[in-house]
Amino acid sequence: MLHEDRLFPAEEKTRAIARRLYDGIKDLPIVSPHGHTQAGWFVRNEPFPDPVTLLVQPDHYVFRMLYSQGISLEELEIPPQRPRPAAGDPAGSKPVKNPHKVWRIFASNYHLFRGTPSRLWLDYVFEKLFGLTERLSAKTADHYYDTIEAKLGEKEFLPRALFERFRIEVLATTDSPLDALADHKAIRESGWKGRIVPTFRPDPAVDPAFPGFFENVAALAKLTNEDTASWRGYLRALQARRQFFKAMGGTATDHGHPTAKTANLDESKAEWLFGKVLEGDADAEHQELFRAQMLTEMARMSLEDGLVMQIHPGSVRNHNAQLHERYGRDMGADIPGPTDYVHALKPLLDRFGNEPGLSIILFTLDETTFGRELAPMAGHYPCLRLGPPWWFFDSPEGMRRFRELVTETAGFYNTVGFNDDTRAFLSIPARHDVARRSDAAFLARMVAEQVLDEDEAVELAQDLTVGLVRKAYRL
Amino acid sequence: MLHEDRLFPAEEKTRAIARRLYDGIKDLPIVSPHGHTQAGWFVRNEPFPDPVTLLVQPDHYVFRMLYSQGISLEELEIPPQRPRPAAGDPAGSKPVKNPHKVWRIFASNYHLFRGTPSRLWLDYVFEKLFGLTERLSAKTADHYYDTIEAKLGEKEFLPRALFERFRIEVLATTDSPLDALADHKAIRESGWKGRIVPTFRPDPAVDPAFPGFFENVAALAKLTNEDTASWRGYLRALQARRQFFKAMGGTATDHGHPTAKTANLDESKAEWLFGKVLEGDADAEHQELFRAQMLTEMARMSLEDGLVMQIHPGSVRNHNAQLHERYGRDMGADIPGPTDYVHALKPLLDRFGNEPGLSIILFTLDETTFGRELAPMAGHYPCLRLGPPWWFFDSPEGMRRFRELVTETAGFYNTVGFNDDTRAFLSIPARHDVARRSDAAFLARMVAEQVLDEDEAVELAQDLTVGLVRKAYRL
Amino acid sequence: MLHEDRLFPAEEKTRAIARRLYDGIKDLPIVSPHGHTQAGWFVRNEPFPDPVTLLVQPDHYVFRMLYSQGISLEELEIPPQRPRPAAGDPAGSKPVKNPHKVWRIFASNYHLFRGTPSRLWLDYVFEKLFGLTERLSAKTADHYYDTIEAKLGEKEFLPRALFERFRIEVLATTDSPLDALADHKAIRESGWKGRIVPTFRPDPAVDPAFPGFFENVAALAKLTNEDTASWRGYLRALQARRQFFKAMGGTATDHGHPTAKTANLDESKAEWLFGKVLEGDADAEHQELFRAQMLTEMARMSLEDGLVMQIHPGSVRNHNAQLHERYGRDMGADIPGPTDYVHALKPLLDRFGNEPGLSIILFTLDETTFGRELAPMAGHYPCLRLGPPWWFFDSPEGMRRFRELVTETAGFYNTVGFNDDTRAFLSIPARHDVARRSDAAFLARMVAEQVLDEDEAVELAQDLTVGLVRKAYRL
Repeated sequence: MLHEDRLFPAEEKTRAIARRLYDGIKDLPIVSPHGHTQAGWFVRNEPFPDPVTLLVQPDHYVFRMLYSQGISLEELEIPPQRPRPAAGDPAGSKPVKNPHKVWRIFASNYHLFRGTPSRLWLDYVFEKLFGLTERLSAKTADHYYDTIEAKLGEKEFLPRALFERFRIEVLATTDSPLDALADHKAIRESGWKGRIVPTFRPDPAVDPAFPGFFENVAALAKLTNEDTASWRGYLRALQARRQFFKAMGGTATDHGHPTAKTANLDESKAEWLFGKVLEGDADAEHQELFRAQMLTEMARMSLEDGLVMQIHPGSVRNHNAQLHERYGRDMGADIPGPTDYVHALKPLLDRFGNEPGLSIILFTLDETTFGRELAPMAGHYPCLRLGPPWWFFDSPEGMRRFRELVTETAGFYNTVGFNDDTRAFLSIPARHDVARRSDAAFLARMVAEQVLDEDEAVELAQDLTVGLVRKAYRL
Repeated sequence: MLHEDRLFPAEEKTRAIARRLYDGIKDLPIVSPHGHTQAGWFVRNEPFPDPVTLLVQPDHYVFRMLYSQGISLEELEIPPQRPRPAAGDPAGSKPVKNPHKVWRIFASNYHLFRGTPSRLWLDYVFEKLFGLTERLSAKTADHYYDTIEAKLGEKEFLPRALFERFRIEVLATTDSPLDALADHKAIRESGWKGRIVPTFRPDPAVDPAFPGFFENVAALAKLTNEDTASWRGYLRALQARRQFFKAMGGTATDHGHPTAKTANLDESKAEWLFGKVLEGDADAEHQELFRAQMLTEMARMSLEDGLVMQIHPGSVRNHNAQLHERYGRDMGADIPGPTDYVHALKPLLDRFGNEPGLSIILFTLDETTFGRELAPMAGHYPCLRLGPPWWFFDSPEGMRRFRELVTETAGFYNTVGFNDDTRAFLSIPARHDVARRSDAAFLARMVAEQVLDEDEAVELAQDLTVGLVRKAYRL
Repeated sequence: MLHEDRLFPAEEKTRAIARRLYDGIKDLPIVSPHGHTQAGWFVRNEPFPDPVTLLVQPDHYVFRMLYSQGISLEELEIPPQRPRPAAGDPAGSKPVKNPHKVWRIFASNYHLFRGTPSRLWLDYVFEKLFGLTERLSAKTADHYYDTIEAKLGEKEFLPRALFERFRIEVLATTDSPLDALADHKAIRESGWKGRIVPTFRPDPAVDPAFPGFFENVAALAKLTNEDTASWRGYLRALQARRQFFKAMGGTATDHGHPTAKTANLDESKAEWLFGKVLEGDADAEHQELFRAQMLTEMARMSLEDGLVMQIHPGSVRNHNAQLHERYGRDMGADIPGPTDYVHALKPLLDRFGNEPGLSIILFTLDETTFGRELAPMAGHYPCLRLGPPWWFFDSPEGMRRFRELVTETAGFYNTVGFNDDTRAFLSIPARHDVARRSDAAFLARMVAEQVLDEDEAVELAQDLTVGLVRKAYRL
């Protein structure tokens, strides 16, 4: 199924260059500085569950496509109440009643994924991990199911074995600021050498619209012995949690706000706003202002503790109201909207934009900002770097557009390599492989069109694969 | 003039694949589910008029380009008062005084169309229909005119003969809700086998800003014996007209609002708003809200009667005020603006977004929404499909960008094949040919870059050409 | 360093076509209708200064990239107070203390420019002008410095000699409306044949937010003997200055407003607004309205005096507040934002849009408008033409996207060829070469994909290089 030249340009000379560039990077270790896998897998090191619970139910790329074509979530046996099972959670949850049947639905509709990155990732997993070489279809469904199920029971398919087989140098999780990081701790204490680091994602305690915000602020007080009902105590509590994450190996924070808006209020105004928020008296506009202020506070703390900031704005979450009510968050119904950066980031940049110690990695779901705002900003401000194409754009065309829109203005060195950003542990090598092939293809075109020498492309390929990642994330 | 490999990638292997894919679809019947041809042509079956009246005056792609380069509408003898002649209307209108002269102006400026789809369409018509093989220019102008004029007089060039020669399986017109569909009826009664179906486009009676809106609502009452001065009667009247269109073979509705905004008012509020509109008391904002509510009402009716909805938003109509005053609508001065879908469609989707029976085909003139909003929405909501690239983007580059921006997120199966959307009957095969070649080229690149197997591409080419069209439009 | 086929498609047949097309245009004269070089250089005809003062300090493309990677402006010895040295100003300014050291910093970081147009331009200058053939790097830094410094002292490198060697047919500068154009006058009187024409850029006297606006309006009065405290006198004064620019060879005006907004106030309202502005009583909204009205006034004057209008909107200037305070304008921190044209230009177009004598060239930094707004507008309104891709988009990919987004709707003939738009005189041939190669590559693809005949492409290549430029700018 997997052609050795997949994703490379068809033109002979260019393809030959792409092959050479790819050969130089294909065996480099995987540096995964941002994602949503679970540290617990590597603590327990238990077998991943059946193919459906592992590959279909937790992958919103997969079930959203099936759903869009009229296949109900009931047919896929996705349980209506949260929490849904985490990707391949070995602890399991409610067992699937008819896993073969669900798998057959998926297999019979595999043609829907033609031309999507899911198809590329899945074929890679099927062939490279499970040795399957005939395309998934209604006909091969049961053979697939049985093969995968059998392999998952083998020792070589336990989480730690896969981690090592994948040659993962470091794997970052994304965690609540309230998380005790017990799993991360357990790994460190276990003697196992796998490097798994947490990422401080404070949204639950800094976004007033986050479900459970008030409880979270209260829990923060307990965790830190700070008075989180006061503005200063609240900030100190967050600072303390950041310190804790840092002590547990974390090098970065992450912020998933609806917009990239930042604010730079004077302290008394900020204090007043925090009071309003805590009293539950903040309307949507005040909530937005509070999130905006908190980004700037986080930048200030980053300057002190050296954690790298990631900002992932622009998703209209839970767009499908009925589905959200019945199934909760992350049901494939987060839809991007237009996102402003040029005005939104100005307050933060006015204050900290020229600080040499600050590092902020920007992401977008609005590709129009790549060339218009993000590349010009990253090509000027020393604190800004551009994250790789995110989510829907984590794909060969998305990566090509990203490079085309960004490189001429920001160069390569204001970007930070690849993020797999995945909940699906098994797909990590597949995703990095697509990124490496896409970079090799892009660079090969530049070499073939004589705008870059091949020795430069070789160096760039290395930098995009590991060098820039380690540097940008301080790993 | 027409190279057999036009629009195919230059690279040899890719071109060979494109050729094979195209060979598999080039002779498939034409399914034309959306356009602006006239049923009357096929009732009367009279010869199309002279080349100028047929090919220059009614084609806003053609005369807008000439106008943009300083050629006046007077020189083209386009009459200043509406109604202008419909495209190739065999019934004719005011005869052109100096058709040869107008044709020569067009011919002498044919270089202006280099690189435009008009050039591709016209060359196809010239060569395939009229046997002309030397490029149109000042030099060949008269030869062209005389050849075309002579051919138009032949029996093989009568509307029905062309319909059959074009292998049209079905042709949809676009019609006012007040239209008695006499021509459609006459065709059905004539014994002629050509399938020509109406499309219910209610804008004249649901958009308060439409010229003649109040008269149209009144006319609706007469046609249906409903009291269209009451909200319920008005809705019943529209329902009745939909039923009538359906009985006449229609399978779809079409909505050309300035924006994609929808609303979901409770009944008393909707009733109040309708009253305000009917009293002529609705300002621009209320008019917009009324159109928004009517989209949701139409979705509700679609759920009942099964008509597929098409939404064509985002055009700022009649941008050129002076021209509009002198010449009326559709003078090539409709200019797209930014269009929001993610918030605009939410009220409708909150109510009906998960209904398995509903089908809504979305179009855009704002390409930034393809990747950011439309593909993510169509890749999730079961009721949403993406219409082909529309109007200015009905072109090889437009189609390529559409596939590149949409496929990775929504796949191929949330799209609906091609619309020719034309007033120019003679150009229908040319337009479908460009679409087929563009699809073949796109798929060939995927095969050549090894992300799709050729057997899959063969199947996809068929689906994009006829399968998805028939299914999406319930034809 | 410079491959003869650089920027040409890799595919053999396409590349061969590109070569042929490029051969037909590579030696055509340079027509440079818009840029920021200085007439004074050609009056004084003194040697350009050292490599750092010539190539690093004044080039915001260069120092912004270095700055973005943490290299301070102090390290580059860029003086904190304005006015900074103009690009390669032979009159010099404060001498650089350690030019070799600054040059080494630049050279050691030359890899940052991989994939950027700066790299293409610089390599061209290094090889073609200075005969350097080994890539710039830490290793070759001193050799570069010494070679360039030595050459700059030779007679062949004096401004006039270079102007002639570059085969510049005409070079337009951009000038304040208050400029006495003494240098332009001196050139005309010198007997030297180089054609250097001024461009009327009235921003300093029509934008109330421009630093020194009030003084500038007062100075306008002195220069013209008009009462610029009255609306009519102010307009007459501007008219007089336009006449003066025209008498000095100018053929165009240029307008760098934050937005493309135009207005069409009646005279009394305009007069009132002007009064408000002059009293310093205009808030941001009124200032915007005044600029909007002034665009329409400028269009009116253009109709009378025949000067072509250029509009360059959409840049958020001086985004980096700290840098702006310390270093002033043009420090590489101008960031584009979303720009509307469809509504913004309507008031002006409602009044003058169909005037055959008017010519307005539109630019954008928001590429989303190319296909959505600008191409549809330029493909209709006789007064509108599209300027080439500007600033961050003056690059091979930027040019490709421009042609792809614009051509199918507006054709080639509503565009105006290339602008080098540069402060860096030495880079002019390099920039035109990139444009010519990019055009050749784009046309070659069209020929290879059989949508254009090669004889047409040959003609188009000529038109894009010189024909359309001369015509659009009335040169």
